[in-house]
Amino acid sequence: MAVGGQRIGLCGLGTVGSGVVNIFNTHGGLIRQRCGAHLELTHIGARRDNPGCDVGSRRVSRDIFDVVRDPDIDIVVELIGGTTVARTLVEEALEQGKHVVTANKALMAEHGNKLAAMAEERGLALRFEAAVAGGIPVIKTLREALAANSISGIVGIINGTGNFILTEMASAGRSFADVLAEAQALGYAEADPTFDVDGTDAAHKLVILASLAFGVPLDRDGPFTEGIDRVAPVDIDFARELGYCIKHLGIARRQSDGLDLRVHPTLVPATKQIARVDGVLNAVMIEADAVGEIVLTGPGAGSLPTASAVCGDLLDLGRVLSRAPADPIPILGIPTSDLRSLPVVLPGDVTCAWYLRLVVADRPGVMAEITRLLGDSGISIESLIQRPPKADSSHVTVVMLTDTVTGRQIESAVADIAALSALQGGVTTLRVESFEEA
Amino acid sequence: MAVGGQRIGLCGLGTVGSGVVNIFNTHGGLIRQRCGAHLELTHIGARRDNPGCDVGSRRVSRDIFDVVRDPDIDIVVELIGGTTVARTLVEEALEQGKHVVTANKALMAEHGNKLAAMAEERGLALRFEAAVAGGIPVIKTLREALAANSISGIVGIINGTGNFILTEMASAGRSFADVLAEAQALGYAEADPTFDVDGTDAAHKLVILASLAFGVPLDRDGPFTEGIDRVAPVDIDFARELGYCIKHLGIARRQSDGLDLRVHPTLVPATKQIARVDGVLNAVMIEADAVGEIVLTGPGAGSLPTASAVCGDLLDLGRVLSRAPADPIPILGIPTSDLRSLPVVLPGDVTCAWYLRLVVADRPGVMAEITRLLGDSGISIESLIQRPPKADSSHVTVVMLTDTVTGRQIESAVADIAALSALQGGVTTLRVESFEEA
Repeated sequence: MAVGGQRIGLCGLGTVGSGVVNIFNTHGGLIRQRCGAHLELTHIGARRDNPGCDVGSRRVSRDIFDVVRDPDIDIVVELIGGTTVARTLVEEALEQGKHVVTANKALMAEHGNKLAAMAEERGLALRFEAAVAGGIPVIKTLREALAANSISGIVGIINGTGNFILTEMASAGRSFADVLAEAQALGYAEADPTFDVDGTDAAHKLVILASLAFGVPLDRDGPFTEGIDRVAPVDIDFARELGYCIKHLGIARRQSDGLDLRVHPTLVPATKQIARVDGVLNAVMIEADAVGEIVLTGPGAGSLPTASAVCGDLLDLGRVLSRAPADPIPILGIPTSDLRSLPVVLPGDVTCAWYLRLVVADRPGVMAEITRLLGDSGISIESLIQRPPKADSSHVTVVMLTDTVTGRQIESAVADIAALSALQGGVTTLRVESFEEA
Repeated sequence: MAVGGQRIGLCGLGTVGSGVVNIFNTHGGLIRQRCGAHLELTHIGARRDNPGCDVGSRRVSRDIFDVVRDPDIDIVVELIGGTTVARTLVEEALEQGKHVVTANKALMAEHGNKLAAMAEERGLALRFEAAVAGGIPVIKTLREALAANSISGIVGIINGTGNFILTEMASAGRSFADVLAEAQALGYAEADPTFDVDGTDAAHKLVILASLAFGVPLDRDGPFTEGIDRVAPVDIDFARELGYCIKHLGIARRQSDGLDLRVHPTLVPATKQIARVDGVLNAVMIEADAVGEIVLTGPGAGSLPTASAVCGDLLDLGRVLSRAPADPIPILGIPTSDLRSLPVVLPGDVTCAWYLRLVVADRPGVMAEITRLLGDSGISIESLIQRPPKADSSHVTVVMLTDTVTGRQIESAVADIAALSALQGGVTTLRVESFEEA
């Protein structure tokens, strides 16, 4: 019955690609034992050598498409990143009848539906464990371990760079810009950190998780997205005083009227496990009907952790494809033809508690006016901190936590408050996640 | 290529068995979509009905062996527990050519080598995700997700009853016996809680994890085992004062001279994630060379969480066996013929820091004498708490944290101290886990 051993072609020899080569170099014996089938990395496509990586006697091509067209290759690993050449590469690999493993979240979030359908039509595997949360097996957990669960929610810290920056801001009281510069110097943040900072990277990952959890097509434009650049050290301090940490969360919940999909800085109760996941770590909390709540924590990026996930996919495929012609696990958890869109709940309709911070003139009647305007929008105040004015100031800082209300209610109240002459500057608003549904 | 759908026979309709039936009752559609193959629960063997469980029109046998001998059944699920009838049942199922899924940690720890070899010889699956840490996919993570890693250590809270008792003792200052009685009333602890209390249950699970992680045969007698009954509220208080929580841990580490396998109450730094896993939750921390450290947390017991793991195994098998004749994943992570025993490091040779508590006469020279005796065994004191004597007492309580030393050094020093006339009662000793190797 043996369909035979599998030969792997690797495209891209950067951080993750070199990690994969290093694992195959050091763990050949282990891979053979655990795979129970012949699984070899034989052909590498890379524009240039990577001095940190010994490719040995493997074939190396400067044109990565040579790997895709190599008739000896059974599985193509795409680790070049981006969504243009990578897309062409994966499409061509599938057209050539190769199974594909990728770590590319942007590619999956933007073009995953088409790629999954292409692979499915051809009976080919398309695996992407490394695309979300690095070395944490969250895709495997959703697609396999929890396959008999109806999943109601996922809440995750799924961008390590952003979590590192928020953690440093919180522990050292430093500004966003200052910590970002350090993260870049340390290599935690890219030279162009836009996607980490503005939430795009986390949104890509959330789109993938939501598809697997809820059986919806991948929808790049689904999540409401805010970055970490709107968090000021003063908000971290006030949040702590109120018993919260600020974390950049991806949230995906199935609600009666659709999907709640959001990526934004969030106040999280300091007692909650996810509030204590610091630095470059990732964490994913899954709420499901049978299992309840499970939390997976670990390194969300890095050469070897991400390569560990790529190799996990490769060993899975090595074991299966040596005995059967196809990967038995549906690429997106269920057959792509069974995926059904659900409406995404508009930010204005999403309910949560809110954190509001504003600076107002220190004179009688101002707080009464603000409370009245909130009340007019149906908003109650659960906690309030008012800082006495500094000696040389005629203004006070006011911080409030509201009860659970819609985004529309907050928007309306904030517009009213913004019109007050007593207000100095704008109103800072941050969402609170209280995990009541968990 | 379709080998066809799979019919499941379930033996045992207790807590977990009824959970499995309930999942099949409510999630038939989901299971069909995610499995991509016909997977049906058709035959149930149970000595009596379970009123919390609607078996529908399924065939029910009072003799569970009727399930095993049913020629229509492809997969037998063993959920009767114990190691006598369950063993015969699983052996007969394998002899009849049935694949087996079990949640039975005692059975796997005690007879797993033979059962795995029997299954392997016959090309049959033997799955046991639910045997360790309930709904947390730790077996899948070790066998599949981390298959390309060399695993160096596992540290886990793997007995929910014990963790519940320690958490309650810590939060309410209550005695062990008092909390145990409550746990029994709440249904968290069995009528006979011996295996939860004395560490046997955790040792069974640790044996399974160690086999998968290190490629060693299952060895029921491997771990050094201590229960939670030796933890007094006063130790929890002193530990807290020193910056630690007391958790009942299973620890499995590969060392240069063998395997360090231990189950015992342990002081854990309060800042460590695993120290904050409270109540009936389980947590498993895995240290591996590529991924680094990952932590999985979730419900370690209960009807639906454990059934979620059983059904995860069933869906995996359903998907695979409809396309190929056998489970491609080696039962114990690698072929049983490749398993190699490693010597278990004797408790006397294991090194860690220690917590010592003793009551001594409050007179000059006593502390100097104790310090000297520790020094004679090569032990330094890292922290010390000495409580002033109560008004009516001539004795003081002394608590010490030592540096990292062998069990033999502690044993020798404690024997010397026990001979002092100034000592009142015995010396309480607990191990400290500082996670320096992580």
